[in-house]
Amino acid sequence: MKNHVTVKPIGVIHSPFKSKDEDIHPQVNESVGEIEIYREYAEGLSDIEGCSHIIVIFWLHKSKFTALKVRPYHHPEKLRGVFATRSPNRPNPLGMTVVELVKRQKNVLTVRGIDMIDGTPVLDIKPYTTREKKDSARCTWMSDT
Amino acid sequence: MKNHVTVKPIGVIHSPFKSKDEDIHPQVNESVGEIEIYREYAEGLSDIEGCSHIIVIFWLHKSKFTALKVRPYHHPEKLRGVFATRSPNRPNPLGMTVVELVKRQKNVLTVRGIDMIDGTPVLDIKPYTTREKKDSARCTWMSDT
Repeated sequence: MKNHVTVKPIGVIHSPFKSKDEDIHPQVNESVGEIEIYREYAEGLSDIEGCSHIIVIFWLHKSKFTALKVRPYHHPEKLRGVFATRSPNRPNPLGMTVVELVKRQKNVLTVRGIDMIDGTPVLDIKPYTTREKKDSARCTWMSDT
Repeated sequence: MKNHVTVKPIGVIHSPFKSKDEDIHPQVNESVGEIEIYREYAEGLSDIEGCSHIIVIFWLHKSKFTALKVRPYHHPEKLRGVFATRSPNRPNPLGMTVVELVKRQKNVLTVRGIDMIDGTPVLDIKPYTTREKKDSARCTWMSDT
């Protein structure tokens, strides 16, 4: 299977970050925003209040893929393979962020820890589970991991 | 933006699990398989050996979305909103699994902890970082989280 497959936004991010050119990194842990799920999908949010953290998969709609090696924003000293970085400029511009679920009001989730820019299309929401906790994880080239 | 967007497989999973009907849950932590990245994307794997764990985003190609409430495989007592579950049958059939990177040989990654079935199309690979470690995470309705 080498064909294209299609995905469709199920909602949109409302974020304090308005542009991809802002350096949002120092603020992300405390950044509060909203995930608006379109009404036709709202029923799928049932029971999500039980989850303290959720995984958001989204479309990096302002990114532009240009090359398989990139210069990471916070470690610009060397080109790195794009799959070893979190650069938004990827062959498939899919983003993934774990956020804390603060509250739900109908089809709107208030979340803490967002790093998406305002207007980002949301593709999926999943509960964060213990399988995503990897205490021994290390990535040698990134000083902050 | 409510339009469809397209994604393209960058590789494929080689897994000991051959069918979505197997109960793979008890075996996943130790399951070893391979992620074959297509040669045209292999340059993007540079530096990935430095990462002990990677995030794999993939296409749940055998799933079928039918309803916004689902009966979880391991907790079938009640219907739950699909976004509060890890059911493969989602509006956008995107899967996300964190695996341990055992080794890389050119464009093939040997990984431990896979839960994908053989032939699953791969859409993205990202390094796992400390931002994905959420020690306080809880999901009340799932007993194993």
